[in-house]
This record gives sequence, structure tokens and C-alpha cells, in this order.
Amino acid sequence: MKKLQVAVLGATGMIGQRFVQLLEDHPYFEIGGLYASERSEGRSLGEVMKLKGVRFQEDTLTTKIENLDPKAVAKRCRLAFSGLPTEVAKDMESSLAEKGAAVFSNAASHRMGADVPLLIPEVNPDHLELARRQSTFGNGGFIVTNANCSTTGLAVPLQAIYKKFGLNACYVSTYQAVSGAGYPGVPSLDILGNVVPFIRNEEEKMEEEIHKMLGAYKNGRIELAEFDMVASCARVPVVDGHLESAVLKLGKDADAAAVIETLEAFRSEPQKLKLPTAPVRPIIVRKEENRPQPAADALAGDPERARGMAVSVGRVRESKGYIKFWLLSHNTLRGGAGGSVLNAELAVARKLL
Amino acid sequence: MKKLQVAVLGATGMIGQRFVQLLEDHPYFEIGGLYASERSEGRSLGEVMKLKGVRFQEDTLTTKIENLDPKAVAKRCRLAFSGLPTEVAKDMESSLAEKGAAVFSNAASHRMGADVPLLIPEVNPDHLELARRQSTFGNGGFIVTNANCSTTGLAVPLQAIYKKFGLNACYVSTYQAVSGAGYPGVPSLDILGNVVPFIRNEEEKMEEEIHKMLGAYKNGRIELAEFDMVASCARVPVVDGHLESAVLKLGKDADAAAVIETLEAFRSEPQKLKLPTAPVRPIIVRKEENRPQPAADALAGDPERARGMAVSVGRVRESKGYIKFWLLSHNTLRGGAGGSVLNAELAVARKLL
Amino acid sequence: MKKLQVAVLGATGMIGQRFVQLLEDHPYFEIGGLYASERSEGRSLGEVMKLKGVRFQEDTLTTKIENLDPKAVAKRCRLAFSGLPTEVAKDMESSLAEKGAAVFSNAASHRMGADVPLLIPEVNPDHLELARRQSTFGNGGFIVTNANCSTTGLAVPLQAIYKKFGLNACYVSTYQAVSGAGYPGVPSLDILGNVVPFIRNEEEKMEEEIHKMLGAYKNGRIELAEFDMVASCARVPVVDGHLESAVLKLGKDADAAAVIETLEAFRSEPQKLKLPTAPVRPIIVRKEENRPQPAADALAGDPERARGMAVSVGRVRESKGYIKFWLLSHNTLRGGAGGSVLNAELAVARKLL
Amino acid sequence: MKKLQVAVLGATGMIGQRFVQLLEDHPYFEIGGLYASERSEGRSLGEVMKLKGVRFQEDTLTTKIENLDPKAVAKRCRLAFSGLPTEVAKDMESSLAEKGAAVFSNAASHRMGADVPLLIPEVNPDHLELARRQSTFGNGGFIVTNANCSTTGLAVPLQAIYKKFGLNACYVSTYQAVSGAGYPGVPSLDILGNVVPFIRNEEEKMEEEIHKMLGAYKNGRIELAEFDMVASCARVPVVDGHLESAVLKLGKDADAAAVIETLEAFRSEPQKLKLPTAPVRPIIVRKEENRPQPAADALAGDPERARGMAVSVGRVRESKGYIKFWLLSHNTLRGGAGGSVLNAELAVARKLL
Repeated sequence: MKKLQVAVLGATGMIGQRFVQLLEDHPYFEIGGLYASERSEGRSLGEVMKLKGVRFQEDTLTTKIENLDPKAVAKRCRLAFSGLPTEVAKDMESSLAEKGAAVFSNAASHRMGADVPLLIPEVNPDHLELARRQSTFGNGGFIVTNANCSTTGLAVPLQAIYKKFGLNACYVSTYQAVSGAGYPGVPSLDILGNVVPFIRNEEEKMEEEIHKMLGAYKNGRIELAEFDMVASCARVPVVDGHLESAVLKLGKDADAAAVIETLEAFRSEPQKLKLPTAPVRPIIVRKEENRPQPAADALAGDPERARGMAVSVGRVRESKGYIKFWLLSHNTLRGGAGGSVLNAELAVARKLL
Repeated sequence: MKKLQVAVLGATGMIGQRFVQLLEDHPYFEIGGLYASERSEGRSLGEVMKLKGVRFQEDTLTTKIENLDPKAVAKRCRLAFSGLPTEVAKDMESSLAEKGAAVFSNAASHRMGADVPLLIPEVNPDHLELARRQSTFGNGGFIVTNANCSTTGLAVPLQAIYKKFGLNACYVSTYQAVSGAGYPGVPSLDILGNVVPFIRNEEEKMEEEIHKMLGAYKNGRIELAEFDMVASCARVPVVDGHLESAVLKLGKDADAAAVIETLEAFRSEPQKLKLPTAPVRPIIVRKEENRPQPAADALAGDPERARGMAVSVGRVRESKGYIKFWLLSHNTLRGGAGGSVLNAELAVARKLL
Repeated sequence: MKKLQVAVLGATGMIGQRFVQLLEDHPYFEIGGLYASERSEGRSLGEVMKLKGVRFQEDTLTTKIENLDPKAVAKRCRLAFSGLPTEVAKDMESSLAEKGAAVFSNAASHRMGADVPLLIPEVNPDHLELARRQSTFGNGGFIVTNANCSTTGLAVPLQAIYKKFGLNACYVSTYQAVSGAGYPGVPSLDILGNVVPFIRNEEEKMEEEIHKMLGAYKNGRIELAEFDMVASCARVPVVDGHLESAVLKLGKDADAAAVIETLEAFRSEPQKLKLPTAPVRPIIVRKEENRPQPAADALAGDPERARGMAVSVGRVRESKGYIKFWLLSHNTLRGGAGGSVLNAELAVARKLL
Repeated sequence: MKKLQVAVLGATGMIGQRFVQLLEDHPYFEIGGLYASERSEGRSLGEVMKLKGVRFQEDTLTTKIENLDPKAVAKRCRLAFSGLPTEVAKDMESSLAEKGAAVFSNAASHRMGADVPLLIPEVNPDHLELARRQSTFGNGGFIVTNANCSTTGLAVPLQAIYKKFGLNACYVSTYQAVSGAGYPGVPSLDILGNVVPFIRNEEEKMEEEIHKMLGAYKNGRIELAEFDMVASCARVPVVDGHLESAVLKLGKDADAAAVIETLEAFRSEPQKLKLPTAPVRPIIVRKEENRPQPAADALAGDPERARGMAVSVGRVRESKGYIKFWLLSHNTLRGGAGGSVLNAELAVARKLL
């Protein structure tokens, strides 16, 4: 198979650079261009590097950033991975789709669009079909989004449980890493030795997106899942890895052992298709009394290409009719660039590309 | 009024040293002795100081630690403030009460005893009457406990809401400071850039103690309050100040504005009695979009003596039939030594001392 | 004495807000206006508050920020305390001096000017006389600067030692707090669990300013002090308090005991004059094996008004012909706003105001 | 070549577990046993794991810890890698050498012994010959030590410079990671948002060991190198990677460019021998204005097996006759277990094993 040329949009940012990391030597894709705003035009990726301690090949680091002109991008690249800021993403991504590019986006702008898949291949692979309903699809252009980083980590185990036991309510509190706010993002004066119990629009996104993602795809539309979803979101002094405490009221009685069994047995479409970026086990259930932890588990996932793509779940326990557990996922890999790359791999497998 | 001689038990630890801080120049109490295990006997407080950046008088710092012999303590001191570790506290505190000392304890050992007040003067001042039922009371000895640090911060606003609106369920997740684990406590390798979603017995304590504290005192016993209480507890890299996200299902409909009004209007016994360590406003409702925060609000409270005694509440909001808010309290002041000192002040006001 | 009206320039920044904190209830000065760029005009101080956990009076918090127009400022205020960014400070401060205002500045712009005092009242009080040589002095206008924050902490003990023992060389490495970079300043992604061994222009400032400050004022000019000064500067994940390791080659033999004695005995002009913001002991020598530390010592200094104005020195020791010690000072108090306020107090005492 | 059986001593500690990490699939060595004190006997490595986020093979994690009996160890294993605490190491390592085992130790106990190599293969490979002079060598037993972690990172670039330009003085200040203190090691209450300017015996070790390591091996003994070495050591809130500021007075004039050229060109014995754990470039000179940093550079080094074995140097610059630079090395890899493994590889290449 000849590799598809892909564009990375927003290559000066954290998510954009995670895309680059994942696309080096990818079996399906080849980086066709790194794009950002005019301000960074002509600078090399190495000069604008935001990630610390991630290794890149020398010729990746010397690649020049280009000004993001949708026409030029669509001409050169079949796909575009978008790490654009929300305010820019909306029009730019639409424009690219119109020009025939398949856009896999990490931005929030199009997520709730009726014809836009809000996709996690392990959770709702059939939602990808929505893309065929987009007006630009005939020309090869369409938009697929991944969910908000904190919603993503939750959606994987929640779907496994929801399908098996049903769900009346989910109460979740987040402990979110600073890389989720991009760079420069959170000022150190705000977070050193501190916790900030507010992330703009985050609770709203979590409470809204989950119902679409766990919804059923029927007759060309999504029937929203119905359960109480209540989110409280905070920023903690951690670099990578969103931790979340979840309390569930299940649809039918189940003890912790049954929930653990269900989570451990969970495999889905990407595992069956052996997609390159799919972890063998999408959910890893930790048995230690004090896991998952960001420092230990953010990069969970095998094979090598799927580092940071597994969701770690721990401390699954019952309390007075509720099931409680903690979960952790890497916010810029599983909950960001990695999620979009996996989405694109599914699109290849499903012949949308 | 002649000042009462008080003993500080566990004076080499974090809570013990907070007691010392609060008892310097206290209007009712005078430090009669600093006690710890034999190991520290003869060392000065300054040599074993664990608190950073707290000022003490020179002669406090040079006071020698004495070996904790209950007979000697009871002979010299009318009261004992206990910051003893749980495993030591049980027998030692009982022994002191038998010898006629009034013990105000921060340890968990006696909290759930049927005749032991689990007391927060703003929350359940009438529970103090339980102390009179203790077999040792006739000789002047009794035990009064304060609650677990994370339960305390929650109990104050919860009581205000519970009384006004009733309560069906409370879902709380904690973001707890490392000082709550004492010294040396949490190893830095476990918490730098990390969150640990486990604190031994903490969730159990929260889920149990709250029902006793919000219970009604009737006919010499406590009728436990009834509502679902589900706690998830984590340690974060913060020095002082426990932050908590709370989600409530109220007993009757109320919007955020009504809850805010109730919290702001809340005053209780210590405010009426103008106890020295009581904050003028036991609950401070923050209006900013991103408060309370440990770095900003841990020491909330007026007057000077009540620094760290107010509970800060913020982001009171509704979501689909639930009330959500964040709260913060100082875990070794309001949730530790300060709580016990306030308990003792109430005991003085109520003539138990 | 009627209080002098003072302006605070840059009141939306960290240093500006430290000025406000120090000027509440100041015995000589009264805040006449809070100034910043047009962008913040009309907002209250509370709305733009950057400091966490510092208490302000209610009417201070509701004071509106005004647009910084030098003419209006000079008309209303006899003095201006400047926490302006360097690029703005240069012209603005000159303009204010021309209009008759005495400017006490924390900015670097004018520090090395031949007629501008680079002043620490404990170190070089006679340098204040330089101000009389400024062309605007006749109209009441002049500029006095305080040193770079990391230079200030060093200059105090260095001067004590230099005067007594002479000095051939000083090798210093800094461990600087993030508040020194202002707000938003250092991104959390750069400093969480990390150290950044670079602060723009910091080493150059330290190596240059110290020779002026320790220089002798003779015949209307400064004769620079002569010794090797080599600085290496790094940012550490600490909020407040610059720690520095110093290695000295003295001009004559002295053991650690002699150096300690000299440092402890050091008193200077502000102590003799009992200036309100002067610490009783400008240098506090710690005897513990592991002090000073930012968390414990940043706010050293008595009386209350001088909190954060004492320089803490510790681990004074000899090694093969060198004297080594560690020092710590509060970078936005002693090394920032507090330094300027003390400078102004000296100017009052010396009748320049 | 048949793999040599090796013992890991102190397998419950940070260094011991780094040994295990490096010995999985090692081309020369095979783990013959994991040893620690009786207390941990029978527990699996997984149960006592201290490292976070390091991957181990499943059968490594289930290996049981054995009680450290020197006779049994020497019988089964040709070599022993020692991560023992200093107080235990002295006698135990001597005992093992007497019983015919080659001991490669990270402990300080034997470092300064006249016949004990204090070895960094890039710095002083010929010192290994000292081992042949040990009384136990005839039976196959001997002791080789690696240096203190902070000395190691310095010794590599210092040797390159010393050989080329000579050296009159070296002034170094350290910014040391908490993993250097082992587990539980530094309490979080001491280091969160803080710096501790004291590490017991660390400055003494640095000032002593460097002269032995850079000394010349002649006629069976080491002639100590002669230059002023002055160290100031501090602990910072970083998990892995010791950063150091170095100021050098060279023996002859050289500008920064010449020093950079020398550092970049530096290759030594392990590179020539292509030892498995040797980095291709032992010194990596960073050209960015703000590197090296622990978060970015602690794991520098190629090939894969040499991750964490390169020393990163940056900001090489001149200042008034001095050369200044910053260096960073991984304290438990290059400065700990990795150093000892490389020592053992050199011993194999030199036929001591």
C-alpha cells in the first residue's frame, strides 16, 4: 500500500507535535507538510518544539513550518490531522473538507454537528458512517472528530459497562494535567503547589459529548444515550495524564468483580482489525490498591506504537449500591493526537480513504 | 478567668505543632507541657519542628519535650489536646480520661464511640452533651473528638444545606494535601508531578463519620442522618488545604442562588458565643469562577486567631437536578488542631470545664 | 506628619500588587492612585489580582485601575513606585521625574545610569546622594532604583563581608522562584518537575550591578568595587524566594566563625533610623544544617511590616581557602517592592522628600 | 559467549531496580538472583516495585526476592551488582569478594580504598587495573565502584576539558533530583515548592572523589589530580536528573568555542570498544539557550540500551576569564546502576571476567 500524504495542522502546538511524533514511520501515513499560522512560517519544527523528552528523527526536526493555506494543503495531502485552536478550526476544517481533504480533528468546533462522527474506534466505530452523509463526502472531503480529552478516557470503560449493565448515572471528578491546556497554557504561578477547580467549558463538554458517543447509530442519526452525567473538573500540577474518579449507578445489580471481568474482557473493532495504533488491551485493570497514577500509567499500552493509548482503570469497588473506580488516560495521546490517528486508521480499514 | 493548663500530646508531629501554634497566647488555655514518645524526650520543640514558615515565640521553641506518662499529664493539666497517632491514641486517651483529664482528640480511635462526641461546634454543638454520659465524667475526665480532616470541611456546608433543603445523596471527590499524612508521610517520589488515588481508610471514614455528625442528638443518643454518601479520595502535590468537589441531590428543589444564600447566611453556636477560634463567617462563598484554591484560600478566616478556620465554597452551580460546588478547608487547622481547640472552647462555654 | 500621596505604576502585575500590599496603612505614604496600561483601565484591583493568599482591605480591592498618564500622576502624587515592565519603564519614569515626581523603581532601565542610585539602604545608603545630581532634582523629580532581585539578596551579606574582610572573588549560583518572572511568566509545562538553567539577562545583571552597589561614593560618582563576580542563574519550581549558593575568596584569611559573627552583627542605616520597613536584623544567620529554605524562610523579618525583608544566610562553612554559604531572600519583597519602599523611606529620612 | 550469572543486591531499592531494568536481555549478563534483606524475602519484585513508568517483563516482576547470604550469592553468581545502603555495603561487599565474586558497587563504602577502582569507563578506564591488586583477585573476587551520582555527571566533561586545557579550579552547584535519596527518601513536605540546600556528605564526596577519578594511574597507584574543587549541593523538586552549574578556571586560555569543540569530539574507551551500555556520544552539547533540563534531557543517549547514559552539557560560555556551563546526567542510570553495568562491561572487555 502506498502511504497517504497527510498534513499536520497546528504543528507548533502540543497536539500538533504529538501528531508528528505518531506519524513518523506510520505504516499508512506519511507527513506531507507541517502547517501553522503565518507567524511561524519558515521556522523548523525543532525551533518551535514544545514537547520535552520526546525523540524525533533529525529530518523531522529540520522540517520547515508552512503557512496554513487550505487550498495548498488539500492539493498536496489526502488527509489533515488538526490540532488547531478551536477559534481557528471551525472555518479552516470546513474549508479543507470542501476542497476534498479528510480532516481528523482534535478541535471542539465540529464535534456536536449532526453529521460529524464524534469517534472513538473502541466505543462507537459505527458512528464513522455519519461521515458519508456530509455534503462534501462525494469529493472525498469530510470531518471526523475525536472527543474532549477527559471525556475520551471515561468513554472507553463507560461504554463497556453501559453495554453490559446499563447505566442510570455517572458522577465524575477530574484531575487534569496541564498539557491539556496547551503551551504556554497554565501559568506556573497558578498551579505550583495548587489545584485549580475550573477549566473553561470542560464540564459542559463532558456532560454533552458522552451522550452522543455512547448513543446508538440508527437510520443515519445518533440516538443520544440517556443517563445522568455530572462532571466536576480541576487542573492539577501534573504534566501528562488525566485521572478521573467515577461513581456509577448501574442499570442492574452488579458487583465489582463482574465489572472488572467486563472491563478486562473488553475488546472492540480496532483490536479485531489490528489497527496499528490500537492497544491490544484497550482497558488495563490495575489490581494494586493505589493505581492508576499519572506518573506510572500515562503511557500504558502495547504495542510500542500504542504507548499512551490504553485506559488504565483501578480501585473498582462497590459502595452502597454504587460502583466506584478511578481511570487514567493520556490526554494528548489517547485523548488527543493518538485518538485522531486511530480514527484515521479506522477510516482506512472501512474504505473511507 | 485563670487560664487552664493544657497538655499537647504528640508534640513532635504536624498536628501537635499546630496545637502549640494555636495555644500560644490563647485566652483560655496555657501550655502546661509538650509530650511525645520517649524517643524525643529532652529535645526542644525547635529541634523537632516540622512546620515550615510558622512563627513561634522563642521560649516556646526552647520548651523541652517530655515523655508521655498519663498520670503525670493528668496531674498537671486539666485538658489534653491529642495529636497522637491512632494506634497509640486509643489506650492513652482512655487512660487520661480515667485519670480525670478532658481529652480533645484529633485521632480516629474514639470517634465512633456511642458516648463520644464527634464534634464540630458549627455543625452539631449539642452532641457535646454526649460527653456527660461517659463513665469518667464524674471525675472530670472525658473524650471529645474532631472528625477526619476531609470530612470536617464537607460537614460545615453540608449541614447548612441539609437543614434547609434536606439531602438524598452526596458524591464527593477529594484533592488532599500531603500534610494530612503527617511527617515524614508521603514520599516525594510518590507525589511529585503525580496524584495518588488512594488514602488508606479515608473513604470509609468520610462515608461513616458524616452520618453521625449530621445526626440528631435525642434522648442521649445520636440518630444517624440518612442519605447516600459516596467518597473518592486522592492525594495531590499540595502542602496544606483539602479541596473537594461535591455533587448533591437535595431533598427538595433549590437553585444555586438559594444554596448560596443559605451558605452565606450560615452562623452557628461558636459565632453566637464569639468563641476565640471561631471565624466570623464559618463559610465563605467565593464568587470568582476558579475558586477556592489551596494556595489562595487555605488560610481563610477572621479574626487573626481563626486563620484557617473558615471553609471556602465556590462554583455553586446546578446541573440537571443536582447542585455542584467545590469546597476547601485547611486540613491541619479547621480539619485538625483548630477544630479541637474550638471544641475545647465550646466545652468551656458550656461549663464542661 | 501628613502622609505623602504615592502612585503605584504597574498595579496589575506581581510587583505592583506587592507595592499595594506594603502601602496599605503605611506611616509615611498613602496610595493616591493605581496605574497600569489602558487595557486594564476601569477594572478593580480585585479583578486583576495576581497574588494568592495575601489579604487586602476591601476598599483597596475595589479601587479602580487608572490609565497611566504621567502628567496626571505627577499632579496628584509626590512619589511613584514603579513595577513597570522594563520596555515601558524607561521613558515613563524619565517623564515622571521631569514632571517633578520622585520615582522609586523596580525596573532595570535606569539602574546603571551614572546619576541614578542603585540603592539598598543597608548596603549603600550614601549612594542616594546621587539623586541630587539628576537634572530634574531642582523640580523635585528624580529616580531611585532598586537592584535586580537576585542581586539584592546577595548584596546585603556580601557588603558586610566585603567591608570587613575584602573580597577577591564571588561565585554564585541561583535557584530562583517563578514569581520573579511576573504573571503569566513561566509556563507550568516548562517548570513542573523541572529546572530551567537560563533566565534572560539575569547573569549579566548580577555580574554588573553588584560592582556598582558595593562601590564607593566619592566626589559625586561611584568607584566600582573590584572583584571577580561569576553568576549562574536557574529557575526552580518554587513560588517565592530566591535561594543562592555563594562561594567567596576573601581578601584576607577568615574562618567561618568570624564570617558568621560579622553577618550577625551587621546593622546599617535603616536599622539606626528605625525605618518602618527595615528588619531589626537585616541578616539572619541560621544554625540548622539545612537552612535557609524558600518554604521556611522567604518571609523572614521583624517587625510585621518587615516580613520578607530579612536576608537569611545558612551553612556558612570553609572549604580549602574559600568561604561557602547559602542565602535566601524574598524576591518580590526584599528584592522587589519592599526594597523600593525602604528606599523611599530613606529618602524621607534624608529629606529628599 | 555464554552469559554470566549476576546477582542484584538491594533489589527492593531504586538503584537495585534500575540494575534489574538494565540487565533484562543484557548481551553479557543474566540475572541469577535478586537479593535484599530478610524483611523482603519471598516477595516478588512487582510487589516491592519503586520505579514508576518503567516497563519490566512479566517473569521479571514475578521473580522472588531472596535473603542476601553472601555464600549462596557467590556460589550462584560470578558478579554482583550492589545497590546496597552504605552501612550494609561495606562488610557485605568485602565478604562477597572474598568468596570469589566480582562486585560492581554503587555504594560509597569502598570508593576511596587505595586498591579500589573508582571507575567511569569514559574517564579513567586504566584505573580498572587497580582491581588486580586486591588480595582477593586471585580467587576471582574484587570490588569496583562507581562514583557518587553528582560527581559522575561532572567527571565526564571535566576530564575532557582537564586533559586538553588543564584546570586550576572548579566551582560547582548542584540541583539534585529526589530519586538520588532513594525510597522513601525525601519527604514530600520537605520538597514540594521548596529547595533544600543540604545533602549529607554530598559536598565532601564531590570534593574528594573527583581528584581520585581524574588522577593518573601510575605504578599501581593513583596520583590525585590537583585543582580547587568547591561544591555546593541542593535538592530540588525533580524526580530524575541531576543538573549542575559549573564554573571553571582553566589551566590555559581557551574560549567557549574551543571548549565546545573539545566536548563534542570527546570519545573514550567504551565508545571504541562499543560496549553495549555506552552512548555513542558520551557528551551531548546542547545549543539551545535554555538547556540541558531534567525534563528534557535526563534520558539522553543512544543506542536504546544507553538511554540515560549521555551527559548533556549546555550554555558553554565565557565570563571574565572563566568558562561556565551547565551539565545534566541521569542520577540513577549514568550516575548509578548504568555506571556500574558499564564498569562490568569494561571488565569483560579487559578480561577481568
